[in-house]
Amino acid sequence: MPGARALLGLGLLVAAGGGRPGGRCLSRGWGWSRDPWGGPHRTMHGSSAGPGPRGLRFLGQDEAQAIDQELFTEYKFSVDQLMELAGLSCATAIAKVGGTTVVMVCFGVPAPGAVPGAGIVLPSLLFLQGYEPTVYYPKRPSKPLFEGLTTQCQKMDIPFLPEFPAEPALIDELYGLVVDAIFGFSFKGAVREPFGSILSTLGHITVPIASIDIPSGWDVEKGKADGLHPDMLISLTAPKKAALHFEGRFHFLGGRFVPPALQEKYALNLPPYPGTECVLQLT
Amino acid sequence: MPGARALLGLGLLVAAGGGRPGGRCLSRGWGWSRDPWGGPHRTMHGSSAGPGPRGLRFLGQDEAQAIDQELFTEYKFSVDQLMELAGLSCATAIAKVGGTTVVMVCFGVPAPGAVPGAGIVLPSLLFLQGYEPTVYYPKRPSKPLFEGLTTQCQKMDIPFLPEFPAEPALIDELYGLVVDAIFGFSFKGAVREPFGSILSTLGHITVPIASIDIPSGWDVEKGKADGLHPDMLISLTAPKKAALHFEGRFHFLGGRFVPPALQEKYALNLPPYPGTECVLQLT
Repeated sequence: MPGARALLGLGLLVAAGGGRPGGRCLSRGWGWSRDPWGGPHRTMHGSSAGPGPRGLRFLGQDEAQAIDQELFTEYKFSVDQLMELAGLSCATAIAKVGGTTVVMVCFGVPAPGAVPGAGIVLPSLLFLQGYEPTVYYPKRPSKPLFEGLTTQCQKMDIPFLPEFPAEPALIDELYGLVVDAIFGFSFKGAVREPFGSILSTLGHITVPIASIDIPSGWDVEKGKADGLHPDMLISLTAPKKAALHFEGRFHFLGGRFVPPALQEKYALNLPPYPGTECVLQLT
Repeated sequence: MPGARALLGLGLLVAAGGGRPGGRCLSRGWGWSRDPWGGPHRTMHGSSAGPGPRGLRFLGQDEAQAIDQELFTEYKFSVDQLMELAGLSCATAIAKVGGTTVVMVCFGVPAPGAVPGAGIVLPSLLFLQGYEPTVYYPKRPSKPLFEGLTTQCQKMDIPFLPEFPAEPALIDELYGLVVDAIFGFSFKGAVREPFGSILSTLGHITVPIASIDIPSGWDVEKGKADGLHPDMLISLTAPKKAALHFEGRFHFLGGRFVPPALQEKYALNLPPYPGTECVLQLT
């Protein structure tokens, strides 16, 4: 589909990917292959809304928003600070799974918070780890924070897609992984365009999807049986209730910045992060 | 010296350290013991002003300032963003060496830059990794950034010293490591008080010192034979020329955020960071 590729500004990307050893499936770690663990799908969550592994609490929407808010108002973290740490968790989790370096990162309408913003710093952080990210970022708030993040990508020659690929097969052909950073834990109500069409397309791709915090289109507490089925979920600060319905293979916890007093206040029971790691694999 | 301790507000800290298994020398990794590598001191730098290991360039003061500036003006990174990544590099490097969790972090007059600011986010990042940091931060600019960082520490019950301990023996008794984040790569000219006295005291302690970017009091390019002799140096973005005179045991490179085009422009020849790591051990 050379015409469609050109339309989407993907010529350069394809050429770049094709010119590298292994093309778009450069192996990093144990990868996204269908059965990397050599056994049946494991989950430590179960599928009920009960408590998670090791007593880990799964947050409701209001609690998630309250914790995020408290980090800013009480602890005086800046959005940039926590966004960078949250984004680094996402980049690290993705790199730990490995298997591809050609990634499309899709944004929705970024809300001004650590978790919602994590996806926005992801392309440059992935790029700095040797990835070839492409960005789909249709709604760009005219705020210095988001303009700065866009400039960082542009200066690193990270391509922005002018349109979202309408054909699932084209996405499968061009990318090894799609990062879904479209909606965060603030999402409520109906999905508006262009995101309805985008989620419908993503529902038909065969390359893996990594969702940040909440699979887009899912109810933050109840999940959604007919929504996206990501292979990977990166829960930030603490998993939300929707994560109990996650049936993909890789569930990571990231965002190692929740002060102990706040963990205690919300009875998060976060498991300890190993060593100096910024992520913890839950399943 | 209970009187001096009380004066310095250290009673709580001592009690807290004493109440934990292993007191102030909780072991993490291979530690600061005198000969962790079981052999003579190794260096990959040599002591001349020639090129560093693997062709790594050691920057002059003007170059270091130009790169820092370009990250903000051209790439539109925010100070908060890079400061957090740089600080995380420092926390990670310190944790990798291990050996103590009771750390005093000393600041000077923080300049508004990624590298100068790295030390300021360090106490909270160390705390989140299980450390017991104490902060000496005599000059606090009344800017939201620095006020926010102070609040983060205070909300995490990280103690601030009202005065710097005048007795080297007291520092040796109370802390397992001193982080020197007093001056950065912008430092020029004479050392003013109270920092002259502080550096003089730090010159007589026996616990190890970890310097961020530049050992305080050193000339950024020429080093300084009669200044501090840190055991550890964490160079951020790229080592400065003074690092060629570093004779301590642990030299780390951190600040994995220099875009490839900028690395190329300044011919940095940075070695690749391993995997998803945010630090690289040079010696």
